[in-house]
Amino acid sequence: MRMSVGILSAIHGPADVHALDAAELPALCGEIRTTLVRYGHVHGGHIGSNLGMVEATVALHRVFDSPRDRIVFDVSHQSYVHKMLTGRADAYLDPAHHDSVTGFTNPAESAHDQFVLGHTGTSISLACGLAKSRDLTGGMDGGSGIRNVIAVIGDGSLSSAIAFEGLNNAAEQGGNLIIIVNDNEMSIAEDHGGMYGTLTRLRATGGKGGPNLFMAFGLDYRYVEAGNDVFALIEAFEQVKDTDHPVVVHIHTRKGLGLPPAKESAEARDSGIPMEGDAAVAAEDSMVFEGRHEANHWQDPDSTTGRPLGARKHYGSMAMAALEPRFATEPGLVVISPATPGSNGITRAFRERAGRHYVDTGIAEEHAVAFASGIARAGGRPVLATSATFFQRTFDQLQQELSLNGTPVTLLDFGGGLSGADNTHSGVFDIAMFGNIPGLTCLAPTSGRAFLDMLAWSTSQSNTSPVVIRVPGDTILNRERSGDLPGDAQDVTDMGSADDTCSNACSEKTTADGTATCPWSRYRTIRRGTTVAVLALGNTLPLGWRVVEALASDVRHPLDATLIDPQQFSTLDAATLTELTGCHRIIVTLEDGQLEGGWGDKVTAFYANAGLRDMRVLNFGAAKEFTDRVPLDALNERYGMTVGNITARIRSESRG
Amino acid sequence: MRMSVGILSAIHGPADVHALDAAELPALCGEIRTTLVRYGHVHGGHIGSNLGMVEATVALHRVFDSPRDRIVFDVSHQSYVHKMLTGRADAYLDPAHHDSVTGFTNPAESAHDQFVLGHTGTSISLACGLAKSRDLTGGMDGGSGIRNVIAVIGDGSLSSAIAFEGLNNAAEQGGNLIIIVNDNEMSIAEDHGGMYGTLTRLRATGGKGGPNLFMAFGLDYRYVEAGNDVFALIEAFEQVKDTDHPVVVHIHTRKGLGLPPAKESAEARDSGIPMEGDAAVAAEDSMVFEGRHEANHWQDPDSTTGRPLGARKHYGSMAMAALEPRFATEPGLVVISPATPGSNGITRAFRERAGRHYVDTGIAEEHAVAFASGIARAGGRPVLATSATFFQRTFDQLQQELSLNGTPVTLLDFGGGLSGADNTHSGVFDIAMFGNIPGLTCLAPTSGRAFLDMLAWSTSQSNTSPVVIRVPGDTILNRERSGDLPGDAQDVTDMGSADDTCSNACSEKTTADGTATCPWSRYRTIRRGTTVAVLALGNTLPLGWRVVEALASDVRHPLDATLIDPQQFSTLDAATLTELTGCHRIIVTLEDGQLEGGWGDKVTAFYANAGLRDMRVLNFGAAKEFTDRVPLDALNERYGMTVGNITARIRSESRG
Repeated sequence: MRMSVGILSAIHGPADVHALDAAELPALCGEIRTTLVRYGHVHGGHIGSNLGMVEATVALHRVFDSPRDRIVFDVSHQSYVHKMLTGRADAYLDPAHHDSVTGFTNPAESAHDQFVLGHTGTSISLACGLAKSRDLTGGMDGGSGIRNVIAVIGDGSLSSAIAFEGLNNAAEQGGNLIIIVNDNEMSIAEDHGGMYGTLTRLRATGGKGGPNLFMAFGLDYRYVEAGNDVFALIEAFEQVKDTDHPVVVHIHTRKGLGLPPAKESAEARDSGIPMEGDAAVAAEDSMVFEGRHEANHWQDPDSTTGRPLGARKHYGSMAMAALEPRFATEPGLVVISPATPGSNGITRAFRERAGRHYVDTGIAEEHAVAFASGIARAGGRPVLATSATFFQRTFDQLQQELSLNGTPVTLLDFGGGLSGADNTHSGVFDIAMFGNIPGLTCLAPTSGRAFLDMLAWSTSQSNTSPVVIRVPGDTILNRERSGDLPGDAQDVTDMGSADDTCSNACSEKTTADGTATCPWSRYRTIRRGTTVAVLALGNTLPLGWRVVEALASDVRHPLDATLIDPQQFSTLDAATLTELTGCHRIIVTLEDGQLEGGWGDKVTAFYANAGLRDMRVLNFGAAKEFTDRVPLDALNERYGMTVGNITARIRSESRG
Repeated sequence: MRMSVGILSAIHGPADVHALDAAELPALCGEIRTTLVRYGHVHGGHIGSNLGMVEATVALHRVFDSPRDRIVFDVSHQSYVHKMLTGRADAYLDPAHHDSVTGFTNPAESAHDQFVLGHTGTSISLACGLAKSRDLTGGMDGGSGIRNVIAVIGDGSLSSAIAFEGLNNAAEQGGNLIIIVNDNEMSIAEDHGGMYGTLTRLRATGGKGGPNLFMAFGLDYRYVEAGNDVFALIEAFEQVKDTDHPVVVHIHTRKGLGLPPAKESAEARDSGIPMEGDAAVAAEDSMVFEGRHEANHWQDPDSTTGRPLGARKHYGSMAMAALEPRFATEPGLVVISPATPGSNGITRAFRERAGRHYVDTGIAEEHAVAFASGIARAGGRPVLATSATFFQRTFDQLQQELSLNGTPVTLLDFGGGLSGADNTHSGVFDIAMFGNIPGLTCLAPTSGRAFLDMLAWSTSQSNTSPVVIRVPGDTILNRERSGDLPGDAQDVTDMGSADDTCSNACSEKTTADGTATCPWSRYRTIRRGTTVAVLALGNTLPLGWRVVEALASDVRHPLDATLIDPQQFSTLDAATLTELTGCHRIIVTLEDGQLEGGWGDKVTAFYANAGLRDMRVLNFGAAKEFTDRVPLDALNERYGMTVGNITARIRSESRG
């Protein structure tokens, strides 16, 4: 049902904001806030940061003239109000249209959106680029069609590596550039870092207390305490409009303004008896209130209530529960999370209990990896948890500080694999990223038990080199919950037929690069068959199992296929692959990641270069492309990763 | 011949520095300086930064007790003096031992070296890790064996993304941590960024002038103006030794102190007539003098004099010469170099002429990529030049800001491929990194002419998406110089035999991901033969040519092989690959990059999944490993990338 909100409904673009009576602006802000809260309850989203930015966004569109004036929203979590004011209000007012816009800015959606953005810290650099182009083509009044260039960045994003590079380069570049620092005193969880003391001092002194970080980078600076007062903001923005040099406008806003106050939620939390595991995580998820949003920065309290936790939080909290009892006797065991602990089941309660065994670096993934390497070099055993998509930000540290130095850090890679995620947060590229770094052991557990075994080993003193564990996803969790996941350690020997000519003795081995000597370097045979071997990596094991079952249950031409859980994607198990040639003709690889640069192609190349020309290899995985909110089923269909398609391809080959 | 230097020769470790009479320290510094200059002339190296750090390093080892006190040298260019004082003086004194140490710190070389380091900005984060481990295991007097932790970082490195994250996290962590900022007023070329104004003010005011960048990050701060006075430094270091909180000691040093003064070199430069191309680059290379070191930050003036330029500078200056005349009419054409212009033939003279068409971002590669994307989004055509190994630092920006946004930026990837480089600077990983990013067109020119054609297209308005051009290496340049490189555009039609049933019409095509519609999306057939097709990517084309010649010239069993220049590694040319099945049975791929995740495996997977089971594919390339200063010939031998091995493999298959 479409909401009835008189002023907002009549806004079809910035010109309508300009045309309003000033007296109507507070009412517009009120309507927007109501709309956001209602939208958040129905649809979920980054509601907290948007609630804090209501007045600032209205003021931006009142003072400036988008798209002639260009606004770049950092990470663009906070762009919902901007979308409402630039012709997309219906997407927030009408539940039927909630999915008509993405959660991020997108030039394909509107001329008012400059970039597709979802990782923090890049807005200043991108804005510098827009401004540079403007200044090369005639400046503010030239032919570029660009006038003011504005970057909007939160205090949490400001701790990202590239944001500092942007601040440092902005002053040198000179010319018109306005950097709005939206200071709501919160990152996704708490802010972390020495500069937040400086921001606190600036807030306490009305922007006057030094040392001023922004001025230290050579930038002009203004402070607006009343960051939720639309008129104060309009006045401040009018003052910097058409500036001839870079200026920071530091505004103090209230995250989640319009949600219930914190007190109620805190009481709710403190009244209960202590909870553990999924229940504890779920309890924190329900704590959405004014000023704080951290258990899950994507807030969707209503829709998650009563539902089981997703894989990230389930396996994340399971890992923390396994590590916590060891803190007392293992001083060097440390969990590091760059800013998004709640999403990965690292609850506030755990963090408080962990004390100095837990470090939140803020949104500073690069530091987090190098920091972890330093800890490990001095004998500690750090565990660094973040999303697959955010590990991309640390590629050079993964290679240089971690793998080249061979330090025993454990990386927990959450959200890897195919999903219906936004194009900015895809986890489909992680196998190709991690799997091609020399000296990095890449494990892909296929059950909670295997996950914990791998974590126990990687954080033990027997492990002496870096390890990434790709945390299992929902396909694994769903099978575990339904109780019919094959291949838990205790199941192996009972599985499958007994063609022992293809036996696969499990033993440790030393690999070519000398680093992956780990208990999982050999592939694990779950079911022994002949002719066809299905190698199903990580999250695809349930699919592989269903394929094998379908082949076996074919009434007319049953096929007794082998099913293998490779367990890792850093080295090929040449012994097992060679052994398979004895009684198999068709090898099928499954992975829920991009095929190009991924894992399956390496199996194919192994057989080709080993001169085993009679082996036929079929690779299933994702195409090299960005996908945006395409449902998982549709992706599996698109990539042929269905039981029907895979068995048909196998049938076709086995007849060929 | 071993130098005779009385004090230095007797230093076998920090204890010997402690044992010296204070009065001997200036003489020790003098001996070290003389040794560095002599070593630089014979061997080459990062001499400038080491000359500036002589007194500071002596003071560090006089005051602190390595390795109980841990010193982390950022990027470790400036660790030569440290090596001399920790048992490795002979490596600098005796030319016969010059290669017995690497140019970087390395724990395998000495207990006094903490990490293998060669990329900037990571020292503070790594040091935070060492300190954290110490503090978890009993603190300064506990069982960790670690007391003071010291990061040494130059003002140039300080502009790197991760360095800021380190500064920001250091204050929050608290505890003993000493950050020595070696301010020699220079990055590799000039410093760039607003914070350098702040450093200048601090130098001018004896450390008192605000705003103080370090204090804005919450850190304690000291200033030492006399950064080349060993006694002043000892006093300053004594004051911070055993500090209980993080402190920055900002020391002002003189880069290149001990080399001839700048005046002579500047006169030498200005006296000559204007030079162009290689001669102009070579002239700048010879300008090594006190205070400045930038034409080539690896200084080796004597050994390069009179020798032809290497591929980086040759092709780099060729590209700049092609772009420069367009600046007058194409306002949006901009060359961006993150701090290392001279290494890539972007001479000071060019930069001065280019004016606002040239931007040095300082060592800030992440900003550089996002900045370029912003320029391109607003209609400009930026060209971003840096080393393959440094592009690794921008992986997330390449993916998110560049490729996901589809902005027409041209990346010039220098130094890609196999080489005898240090393990910190290997270019062997670039194909696997760039080639697996959706929407990024990856070109691999095999001649100067092809390189310029590709650059002209990628920077034209007809190109609408990001392009990386892998700048040709020395194997290509050497063939071009010798005049016998096959495959220049004009040669194609005359090459090879005339089996036209395998004709390969060149045309544009649209690829699956919709982005790589470029004039080089089809592979180029240089020589048409049968049975065997050699697909030689980029720098391996000369090898491919020699293989094909060797096959043809075999007296007893001549083979008339096809030679193909794929020209790019972002998409497979399925039409050509399919066509080859008509008259070929063996496909050989060559690439001078890591095979895993690279290009050749994709060709193999193409044939496997297309069901072309009679095609035999052999892939040649590098193993997944780090190599450290292994000569190129030895690497080619190790990976079987020799004419003898490849032809033998082909012979073996063709008989099979």
